[in-house]
Amino acid sequence: MTNLKIRGERLWDSLMETARIGGTPDGGIRRLTLSEEDARVRAWFKEAVEAAGMTLSHDLFGNMFAIRPGKNNDLPPIAMGSHLDTQPTGGKFDGVLGVLAGLEVIRTLNDAGLETEAPLMVVNWTNEEGSRFSPAMLGSGGFAGVYSADQVNGRRDSEGISFGDALEAIGWRGDLPPKGQPIGAMFELHIEQGPILEAEGKDIGIVTGVQGLRWYEAVFEGRAAHTGSTPMSMRQNALLPAADLIRAVDAIGLAHAPDAVATVGHVTVSPNSNNVIPGEVRLTIDMRHPRDAVLAAMDAELQSAFARILAASGVSGALTPVSDVAAVAFDPDCIDAVRQATARMGLSAREIVSGAGHDAVHIARLAPTTMIFVPSAGGLSHNPAESTTFDECAAGAQVLLEAVLGYDRSRAEALREKETD
Amino acid sequence: MTNLKIRGERLWDSLMETARIGGTPDGGIRRLTLSEEDARVRAWFKEAVEAAGMTLSHDLFGNMFAIRPGKNNDLPPIAMGSHLDTQPTGGKFDGVLGVLAGLEVIRTLNDAGLETEAPLMVVNWTNEEGSRFSPAMLGSGGFAGVYSADQVNGRRDSEGISFGDALEAIGWRGDLPPKGQPIGAMFELHIEQGPILEAEGKDIGIVTGVQGLRWYEAVFEGRAAHTGSTPMSMRQNALLPAADLIRAVDAIGLAHAPDAVATVGHVTVSPNSNNVIPGEVRLTIDMRHPRDAVLAAMDAELQSAFARILAASGVSGALTPVSDVAAVAFDPDCIDAVRQATARMGLSAREIVSGAGHDAVHIARLAPTTMIFVPSAGGLSHNPAESTTFDECAAGAQVLLEAVLGYDRSRAEALREKETD
Repeated sequence: MTNLKIRGERLWDSLMETARIGGTPDGGIRRLTLSEEDARVRAWFKEAVEAAGMTLSHDLFGNMFAIRPGKNNDLPPIAMGSHLDTQPTGGKFDGVLGVLAGLEVIRTLNDAGLETEAPLMVVNWTNEEGSRFSPAMLGSGGFAGVYSADQVNGRRDSEGISFGDALEAIGWRGDLPPKGQPIGAMFELHIEQGPILEAEGKDIGIVTGVQGLRWYEAVFEGRAAHTGSTPMSMRQNALLPAADLIRAVDAIGLAHAPDAVATVGHVTVSPNSNNVIPGEVRLTIDMRHPRDAVLAAMDAELQSAFARILAASGVSGALTPVSDVAAVAFDPDCIDAVRQATARMGLSAREIVSGAGHDAVHIARLAPTTMIFVPSAGGLSHNPAESTTFDECAAGAQVLLEAVLGYDRSRAEALREKETD
Repeated sequence: MTNLKIRGERLWDSLMETARIGGTPDGGIRRLTLSEEDARVRAWFKEAVEAAGMTLSHDLFGNMFAIRPGKNNDLPPIAMGSHLDTQPTGGKFDGVLGVLAGLEVIRTLNDAGLETEAPLMVVNWTNEEGSRFSPAMLGSGGFAGVYSADQVNGRRDSEGISFGDALEAIGWRGDLPPKGQPIGAMFELHIEQGPILEAEGKDIGIVTGVQGLRWYEAVFEGRAAHTGSTPMSMRQNALLPAADLIRAVDAIGLAHAPDAVATVGHVTVSPNSNNVIPGEVRLTIDMRHPRDAVLAAMDAELQSAFARILAASGVSGALTPVSDVAAVAFDPDCIDAVRQATARMGLSAREIVSGAGHDAVHIARLAPTTMIFVPSAGGLSHNPAESTTFDECAAGAQVLLEAVLGYDRSRAEALREKETD
């Protein structure tokens, strides 16, 4: 047990200061990955970690690694962090809390002049959101070798700009290769982005894993023609099967509720003109479940629903998998470090499976990893109204500090025991 | 009967020359109203009509009037024309044929040194398409007093730019007020934009009227939230009722087929991100029928379908009428002038009701008006593949010449008879 206390005001001030970078009038943030706003928040982060005496490096995908040395710098650093990019209509806490809480932990240790056994690291993962470049968690996925460098760099936004060109343009392409930065463990503090903690009045979510996720792109291709002079019987309207698929996806989610979710979030109609029959429609599909077996069943239902809708539509089309992330179980020692921290602090906590994907999903392939959740008011996220209180943010950062120090201590003890054997 | 022959090559060359202004790689045209491309085609038109010895003026809405004097310039001019703007994915003939065929008629009369009784006029109406600024036929509607000047100038495109500002920006706002240019009659040559003439092997459509048209905007407002961590039971997904409405609109069209058509052509989803539940969806609805009574019944069906869908959806929403154009019967004398022209020329023709709205609909409120149709391959329009042959364009222009001269002669005779009474 330590008597170190993070400074909630300093954390909150950093949250509100960075919230102005890409800040929107409705109190949200629009800071799309690799945009000019992303470049500005990266510059802010660089200045802040260097002011905290850390050494910053970055890799091929623009992932940023800020390191504070420990007593034993042969040990791989214990990482804290998340992402600084946001949704087109994002809030002030999704991702940024995990990065800035890591920074606050470092600042607190600096104030106390306390040195950890292993080095500590604060990370900003590139393009977690996936709204400009699909799929989500692309930077951490590239780092973990889930995607090749070419796959990552080749992803294109809606204007046809590639991830590689956008990264080059803002000047954050580094030399570190995938897995080029050793990681001893990672603790990612994040808002729940769901309604459960608030509904149950819990302070902290001890995250034991992340549900599986599958993304798809569906396209229907009919024939654009004049709405007034093309008889109903002679149409190839791509929007009709799209409407059927939207309903079918929702039905699959409902059929496997309460644990399942299924959503069409993105729709592109072309030419998208009042008096032209839609010639082409593209949709994205997002399906998730904590158990891979159920997710596989949902996948099969989607395939057959799509085939049935396409056959009945009289237009052509295709359903393409874009992303497939298996359900993840986090590291027992990391989870235990969080559990002990909440117990020592006397906080109310519950174990929870994350409904959202996070960078921790990919990093868990490389190193012991877990997450810490704090409540989201109304379960709202990816929304300007996203809200977590001052006290909740501070409690989350304190748990992060305690968990990291606890993990660092117990690992050091384990090593010493080994040596004395 | 005249022996004047329009020059098909000259007309075709003008069509292909203007098709390069906003021309797209797939052979189509993207020349949105009041865009930089629109400014360029207006400059081309100004140069062409002045080279043909005509006097050009333009009104408050940017409608362009090019006049060739006649023997009796106290008579209001007989107008020919249509529009030079296109759909986002438009073809090479929709609108532009009617304007350039009018120009070809003037050039032919100039070559022959033939003077008409009444002055002749070639018109380019602003924003017929309605795809940048809804509703369609906005320029001719403003001229005819269907919309007030404030209504027209206040219409905004998807980026929030107003019609008035866009018109000012390209320098085509004139002083002529609504109805400020006298019109003795108007003949609008246009492609059918439907499959009927081609299917029946007819050269010419003698257009007796235009079907009624109603446009609406529907909006559904739910709550944007994270797709992964928001349980199905706690969602307010605006896309689900939108999907239902797309199907309901199609069903209304089918219920009144073959004469009815009903279409959702434009859909906007926000925030439109793969992992955000759609918080707001906007759709446009286009319904048409040759009989106003049936269109009124379709309107009632839409209202009740919308109310039913909204009530079942758990989100809020509204259905707003955007445009309501009654069915139109064209002028018997103008129709007869076209009928006689086709008969004299030995062309195969059939009477037809236009499925599409046209500027002629609004001008018919002010002056004797009709239209002449030529075939559209496959009935395709608002599509880069839109196609009408060299011979079909030439035949249409020749019918336009004959009809205008015939109408001019018979009206002059009628006047002389009056005087001699």
